[in-house]
Parts: sequence; C-alpha cells; structure tokens
Amino acid sequence: MTPARIERLRQVLARRQPDLTVLTDYVHKGRNLSAIIRTADAVGISDVHCVIGDSDYKRFLGTSMGSHSWVDVHRYRELAPPVELLKTQGYQIVAAHLSPTAVDFHEVDYTKPTALMLGAERVGISEQGEAYADVHITVPMVGMVESFNVSVAAGIILTEARHQRQQAGLYDQQRIDQATYDRLFFEWGHP
Amino acid sequence: MTPARIERLRQVLARRQPDLTVLTDYVHKGRNLSAIIRTADAVGISDVHCVIGDSDYKRFLGTSMGSHSWVDVHRYRELAPPVELLKTQGYQIVAAHLSPTAVDFHEVDYTKPTALMLGAERVGISEQGEAYADVHITVPMVGMVESFNVSVAAGIILTEARHQRQQAGLYDQQRIDQATYDRLFFEWGHP
Ligand SMILES: C[S@@+](CC[C@H](N)C(=O)[O-])C[C@H]1O[C@@H](n2cnc3c(N)ncnc32)[C@H](O)[C@@H]1O
Ligand SMILES: C[S@@+](CC[C@H](N)C(=O)[O-])C[C@H]1O[C@@H](n2cnc3c(N)ncnc32)[C@H](O)[C@@H]1O
Repeated sequence: MTPARIERLRQVLARRQPDLTVLTDYVHKGRNLSAIIRTADAVGISDVHCVIGDSDYKRFLGTSMGSHSWVDVHRYRELAPPVELLKTQGYQIVAAHLSPTAVDFHEVDYTKPTALMLGAERVGISEQGEAYADVHITVPMVGMVESFNVSVAAGIILTEARHQRQQAGLYDQQRIDQATYDRLFFEWGHP
Repeated sequence: MTPARIERLRQVLARRQPDLTVLTDYVHKGRNLSAIIRTADAVGISDVHCVIGDSDYKRFLGTSMGSHSWVDVHRYRELAPPVELLKTQGYQIVAAHLSPTAVDFHEVDYTKPTALMLGAERVGISEQGEAYADVHITVPMVGMVESFNVSVAAGIILTEARHQRQQAGLYDQQRIDQATYDRLFFEWGHP
C-alpha cells in the first residue's frame, strides 16, 4: 500500500459512526440495496442490516450487493432478530414511512444511536416494521408521485443525519473501538 | 374526476417551479433517469432536459422514463442546445461534479433560476458540461466510495433546493403562468 492509501483508510476509519445504521424491511431489488449500501458507506456507516425474506434469501447469498467490502452487510430472513438486537443496544428505530403519524424527517435527532428503517418499493414498511418503529418520518413531497425511490429517500435522510452529526462534532473524533479499527484496517489493507 | 382529485391537481400545479430544472449530461441508464424524473416531480419541477446521445437516443424513444405524465421530458442528442436555451433564459448552470474547484452543495442559492446538471455513472460530467457550468458542487462524502449513485445525488441536492425555496416562500404562490397551468390541468385531468 502507498502512504496515500494508508492515510485514506485511516481517515475513513476515524470517521466511521458505529451508532448509525440502516435496516431494510424486505427491500428486495438488488440495485436498490446496492445504492443504499453505497450511500451508507459515503456517510460513514460501517454495518447495515438487511431483512431479505425467505424467497429472496438464496438469490442474495453470494452476491456482493455493492460496496460490500467497505460495509458489513448482515442478512436476515425476519425482522424481529435485528430489531431486537438494535433495541437492546439502545438504538432508536426511525422508520421512513408515509403514515398518518409521521413527522418531517428534519425533526429527528440523528446524533442519538439511530437505525433508519426503509421499506420495499410496492408495499413499503411492513405492519411489523410499523409497530416496531419508535417514530415514523417522511420527506415532504409537492408533486404527483406518492413516494421517492427507496434509495433516493435513504440518501436524503442519511444526508440530514450526516449534517447533524457533523454539526455535533461526531466526525472529529474516532468513534469505533480500537479492536474494530484494527480489524477493518487489516481487512481493507489486505483484500 | 372526483373533487378530491381536482383539488390535488390544483395543489400540485400551484407549487410547480418553472425556474428550477434538471439537465442530464449523457446519463444513459433508464432506471437512473426514471428515478431522477420521479424526484423532480416530487420537488415541483415541471420540465427536465435529458441529453441522451446518439447511440442511446433510439432506445429511449417511446419509453416513458418514469413519471413522464407529470413531468415534461425534453430529449436532445447534444448538450449545446439545452444549455444555450437555459442560459438565454437566465438560468445558472450548477453541475454536480467532483472537480477540484467544486464547492459544498449547500453554498449555492437555488432560489435563483437554476438548472442542476448531472453526469453519467462511469464518466461523470463531460468536458463540455464542465466548461458550460457556472459552478461545480459536491455532496461531501466520508467513506471509501468515490461517488453516490446519480439519482441519489440528485435527490440530495434537489431536497436542498426545495428546502431553500420553501424558506423563501416560493411554494406559497402560483409560479407557472396561467396558460401553462390550464394546459397541464387539462392534460392531467383527461389522460
Ligand atoms: C417506494 S416507497 C414505498 C411506497 C409504498 N407504496 C408506501 O405507501 O409505503 C419505498 C420506501 O422508500 C421510503 N420512502 C419513499 N418516499 C418517502 C418519503 N417521501 N418519505 C419517507 N420515506 C419514503 C420508505 O421507506 C418506503 O417504504
Ligand atoms: C457515479 S457519479 C460519476 C462518477 C465519475 N466517476 C466522476 O468521477 O465524475 C454520477 C454523477 O452523480 C453525481 N454525483 C455523484 N456523487 C456526487 C457527489 N458526491 N457530489 C456531487 N455530485 C455527485 C454527479 O453528477 C456525477 O457525474
């Protein structure tokens, strides 16, 4: 590795946000998942949780789903296990969901440990996902279409999260523990 | 049409922003163009300009490219005609472009007549597009990937534009002229 490459890996690792993640609720289009994972990396997310569902699970085994090497993608067949894990770890579950009780996405405090839940193209957030969520958020729209593409919605909301975390100085200090830092530095440096 | 439907069409038309548009610089993936057009509608854009290029032009003839019925999609084989048109009409050309002179996308005043120029997945903004642009902007990234998917970048930047225009009250008054309003009301109401 060149010194410039080493420096780049160190800069990225120093900005990883271990308490920000994405949880996809049966999103099944590979290109949407890829774009979401790519965006997650770009805002400093190190782990995403993808609930894929039984029928799609096999199809996604062994596929890279995009920026896999920079983001650890955890796959599940059901929503309960990742939600329970994240709740135990103190994350708020924020569902991007056009429900009657949803608030504007700017109103959430993304500097807290946060999991952004995203729904599938046709059915949106599942009934189960709706119930698990601590809050529903929407990105306001003023046109005729009823929704954004899910990866576009993810980009808009995660950019707000990045902005709030930047204001709060969360990218100015190392946030991941040293063991994780060392593991990722080794993995990325020796692919 | 039901009264609720008529009311919805009127609300959307009353918020259309005739001085905000998107100009795609040889973006050729249909699904990216579709997602961009869908997002354009959602922020109140009525017209987008797509430079498709000779080899892809036929392929796109007759395809809907997404939310076509709500957004007028103008197609070109070259960049010069739409750029000259937009410049004559007083638009600033803002290129989303990771160049050394680019500024943070928050720094642009999107309440001015603005065309957001977007580049293709692999090659980005063309040399010609780079030269035509009044300003280059980037969405900051802190990860390993070099860029966002183009439709995700469009969503992030157009959301900032919508936000600025909302603050400035540009969605609180009818912005399109009455002739355009009447034409669109008729077209949308009688598909
Ligand atoms: C295409 S949308 C699903 C639309 C679905 N018909 C519904 O009514 O929920 C796919 C996912 O993108 C996210 N999304 C899209 N547009 C959104 C918006 N304006 N606000 C919040 N989330 C949105 C949500 O997570 C949604 O479940
Ligand atoms: C996948 S990117 C192109 C990457 C290309 N390799 C380059 O270096 O320009 C496709 C388009 O999305 C937009 N884009 C993607 N990420 C961006 C960012 N961080 N800032 C500004 N524009 C971006 C730009 O319009 C770009 O031309």
